[in-house]
Amino acid sequence: MMIHNLFTQVTQASDSEVFETLLQTEAFKLERVVSTGQATPPGQWYDQDGDEWVVLLSGSAGLLFDGERDIRVLQPGDYLYIPAHTRHRVEWTETGVETVWLALHYTTGHSLS
Amino acid sequence: MMIHNLFTQVTQASDSEVFETLLQTEAFKLERVVSTGQATPPGQWYDQDGDEWVVLLSGSAGLLFDGERDIRVLQPGDYLYIPAHTRHRVEWTETGVETVWLALHYTTGHSLS
Repeated sequence: MMIHNLFTQVTQASDSEVFETLLQTEAFKLERVVSTGQATPPGQWYDQDGDEWVVLLSGSAGLLFDGERDIRVLQPGDYLYIPAHTRHRVEWTETGVETVWLALHYTTGHSLS
Repeated sequence: MMIHNLFTQVTQASDSEVFETLLQTEAFKLERVVSTGQATPPGQWYDQDGDEWVVLLSGSAGLLFDGERDIRVLQPGDYLYIPAHTRHRVEWTETGVETVWLALHYTTGHSLS
């Protein structure tokens, strides 16, 4: 039984967000994302075919949903459900710390296309 | 889009662990567990039909796997995969704080029996 830690330093030297699949079956994918100040590029939106449940575990971030005026600020422990095709963008993530997300991607059906 | 927090005070007045299903589909169940000093009763083991991925997010706990001598101590961020029918028990959870777990129960098949 191997024990790992979600907050372990991400050793990859990168200016990008770091995505790591922790677990994957036909029905879902569990992913860790580590952000260090990145945001969704201007004018771009996430528009996902599957549903997502996501929790922010360290750092902080601002999420904007299409059609909403206010940016939602996420603090450690904050989680939400994002239905498929709910357009959203990450307006900002905190700089100087690692913002660690845990995202569960799934479909109510049985495969992730 | 509703935002909740995993560390929100558990209002339920209880001496028991508190289990809350956050998300459930045919393929998995995502559960928050809040422990406040409880342990698996002496001589009892978890022996689950499904697989489990679990992370400890606050507090601390001691896990024992059947056949192992040493108790594994889990600190915040520690996660592990527990295959179906891997007998284990929670030897202790920290007292005086809330130990918050996030557990993903699933089967490699498509239904949780």
